[in-house]
Amino acid sequence: MNKPQKNQEIVLAKRPKGVPDKSTFGFQDIEIPEIKDGEVLLKSIYVSVDPGMRGFMDEGDDDDRGNKYEIDKPINSRSVAQVVESKDKKFSKGDIVYGRLDWKKVQAFKAEGLEKVDPELAPISTALSILGVTGLAAYFGLIKIGKPQKGETVVVSGAAGSVGSVVVQVAKLKGCKVIGIAGSEEKIDYLENDLGIDKAINYKETDAMAKALKEACPDGIDVFFDNVGGEIADAVLEILNKNGRIVVCGQIAEYNNENPPKGPRPQHSLIKKSARMEGFVVFDFKDQFDEAKKELAEWYNNDKLKYKENVIEGFENIPSAFIGLFSGDNIGKQVVKVSEVEK
Amino acid sequence: MNKPQKNQEIVLAKRPKGVPDKSTFGFQDIEIPEIKDGEVLLKSIYVSVDPGMRGFMDEGDDDDRGNKYEIDKPINSRSVAQVVESKDKKFSKGDIVYGRLDWKKVQAFKAEGLEKVDPELAPISTALSILGVTGLAAYFGLIKIGKPQKGETVVVSGAAGSVGSVVVQVAKLKGCKVIGIAGSEEKIDYLENDLGIDKAINYKETDAMAKALKEACPDGIDVFFDNVGGEIADAVLEILNKNGRIVVCGQIAEYNNENPPKGPRPQHSLIKKSARMEGFVVFDFKDQFDEAKKELAEWYNNDKLKYKENVIEGFENIPSAFIGLFSGDNIGKQVVKVSEVEK
Repeated sequence: MNKPQKNQEIVLAKRPKGVPDKSTFGFQDIEIPEIKDGEVLLKSIYVSVDPGMRGFMDEGDDDDRGNKYEIDKPINSRSVAQVVESKDKKFSKGDIVYGRLDWKKVQAFKAEGLEKVDPELAPISTALSILGVTGLAAYFGLIKIGKPQKGETVVVSGAAGSVGSVVVQVAKLKGCKVIGIAGSEEKIDYLENDLGIDKAINYKETDAMAKALKEACPDGIDVFFDNVGGEIADAVLEILNKNGRIVVCGQIAEYNNENPPKGPRPQHSLIKKSARMEGFVVFDFKDQFDEAKKELAEWYNNDKLKYKENVIEGFENIPSAFIGLFSGDNIGKQVVKVSEVEK
Repeated sequence: MNKPQKNQEIVLAKRPKGVPDKSTFGFQDIEIPEIKDGEVLLKSIYVSVDPGMRGFMDEGDDDDRGNKYEIDKPINSRSVAQVVESKDKKFSKGDIVYGRLDWKKVQAFKAEGLEKVDPELAPISTALSILGVTGLAAYFGLIKIGKPQKGETVVVSGAAGSVGSVVVQVAKLKGCKVIGIAGSEEKIDYLENDLGIDKAINYKETDAMAKALKEACPDGIDVFFDNVGGEIADAVLEILNKNGRIVVCGQIAEYNNENPPKGPRPQHSLIKKSARMEGFVVFDFKDQFDEAKKELAEWYNNDKLKYKENVIEGFENIPSAFIGLFSGDNIGKQVVKVSEVEK
């Protein structure tokens, strides 16, 4: 593997109003950087595009995790890359790594911000989905916080999403009855027929969510994995069982809300049901990542855990792949393949 | 001890509008009943009056636990009584028992609805307070759900109440920094000077609760024992620490609300803080009551756990003791002593 000779980056050219378009992005030719001690030179392989990145394009303060894009500075996202050159003992030339990388063909990066990806476990692009933060969030949120028991009823909102689609499958593997909530007939079909859950509810076609949930869950709800928040969560609370658990994982319905929206206070229901509502971020379980990745990979390799990946090829197509997230009802993880792994 | 010769009961004469008055209650002379197999004859000793009983006087359906008073039927409340005669092998003549008894001087009662009170542990009236459901709710809610660690900051709303005043003391015994929230200067004084907590905040004198809490809790809040709900709970969420725990125990601010009031949805904060909000009722821990009573009694007998009890004497004064709850800022448990224990 030779050191690349040309380089390019994609910057935030201007802050979008509403849905981003091509003018949001700018391409710039840049140098191949020299690396310092403790750094590696990386060649991007797979770049993830996620709806959540839209929020980082707005003006304003950094969020808690320092995610904010600046004008004329490169955009970054979760990426899989290959080490071209290393000045850190943790990584060797040829290693596959995962990190929050700039949208650059080639870049210098501090070793401490990277994780090794094991190509033996599963295809390396899964580091952006089922073996990455979304799959791990599903795994730990469901198992460690939801604690589903065999025979219990698990309801998942945003069930066809990157987290939800793993949650519903792991819940089935744990012997639960699984009800998914999603927003299109295509997703309902995917959940019921491809992922094999017990019942999927299209909330856009359902006037009375509480009633629909009651019909789908005659034994009540034991675990609610809440990816969405809002009124769906209110409806679930009504038929939550004694000792029910609500796993709070991302709140799409509240996206871009500076102040939390108002809704019925849940405290009274929590007392009545002796129930628990618990939030988490996946990094709370960092010390258990390796173990979880092994189990997820095993399920994946034995066809017990399915996922959909849409791959667009070419560095130049990263912006359109991102823009495409906001039109239509894509199912599955959108990634851009920027280059090939080299031996 | 001889079988009593006369008997009397207090019934709900009419449903009150707002605060009850004397016309709410009616006195009736009744017979001394004969008991059947599986029953005991009880002589009331201590009768508890609680603000929560006001809700049972309104028209409407039973709540989940079957608490509702009917016109011309005896009122009931948590009481301590002595067994005068027994046709059940679990109880003997002279035993002290606890139960939700009618306001009658003497009554027949099914043995299965009663718990034995151990007069060796502590004064028997404590079965209505620190060794009863309020003390046990404080104990289990704090220890089993709040799980306070030495050095952590614990905030308690309704801190001078029957549950709160036990919570703050047990939290101090567990080595925590304890901040109490209450609604009068007398209560603030009681909390800071009698119960020795670190700081008490009078929410009625405080415009900006979040600011006041921030000042009182420079290290943030690890456990919030929430007896009140409403805006105080919103303010706490703002400065809850990573992995914070909110124990939801009764919601006075939402009392008499048929539909839960609206407020800022907590889910987003729960994710940001990886925090847990959990409701409970004391009976979730029924199999651990004896153990907890022993520990609470030991603390009480060693002056580590204080409580205030206001005793009014005489069966005829039960209504005025109840009416008195709604005027002024009484601190401590209000009980009525109806008769003496007999050897």
